[in-house]
Amino acid sequence: MNKTNLYDAQGFSEKAFKRLLVHESPYFKILNFNFKAGQELPVHSHDIEGQVSLVIIAGEGEFLGKDGQSIPAQAGDVLVSDISEPHGLRAKTDLRLLVTIAPPI
Amino acid sequence: MNKTNLYDAQGFSEKAFKRLLVHESPYFKILNFNFKAGQELPVHSHDIEGQVSLVIIAGEGEFLGKDGQSIPAQAGDVLVSDISEPHGLRAKTDLRLLVTIAPPI
Repeated sequence: MNKTNLYDAQGFSEKAFKRLLVHESPYFKILNFNFKAGQELPVHSHDIEGQVSLVIIAGEGEFLGKDGQSIPAQAGDVLVSDISEPHGLRAKTDLRLLVTIAPPI
Repeated sequence: MNKTNLYDAQGFSEKAFKRLLVHESPYFKILNFNFKAGQELPVHSHDIEGQVSLVIIAGEGEFLGKDGQSIPAQAGDVLVSDISEPHGLRAKTDLRLLVTIAPPI
């Protein structure tokens, strides 16, 4: 068993959102992104099989999708998207995001 | 894209911990467990390939392992275990846990 505390592991940066690889295995890849208010993970997609979960650990913002789609994002939200479906995130407050990708890419 | 808010989706029960299937696909299975203080997911394992992540959304407790192993658990903790490795959780306060299993079982 291997434990990481997201609050201890990574802070925030005014320059750009921060990214931490929490875990990688043949089964899934787990990443932590921290956004200062106003920072954004631009909408993107990859033409491959698999799904990604986006979990809001703390903060508020919006999930972004294709054609300017926006869904409110707040602590406790779990969003699941195909990897091939456009997805992104914009932070309204400082925001901690946990991303799990399966299979890992 | 499909969104669930864990705080809206499921509360707590004095009788036993609550369990909600958040998502299931060929890629991963996502479950939410809510524990009242003192409730426990007993140590268990399955003799199959794959890994499980345990994310503490809110609350405090301890991760349980083989031979009475105990690791403190608090909000923001991400624990990864092989599915075949004994793992469990005991809540010290009301606790919200998100579990991701890949591949799904």
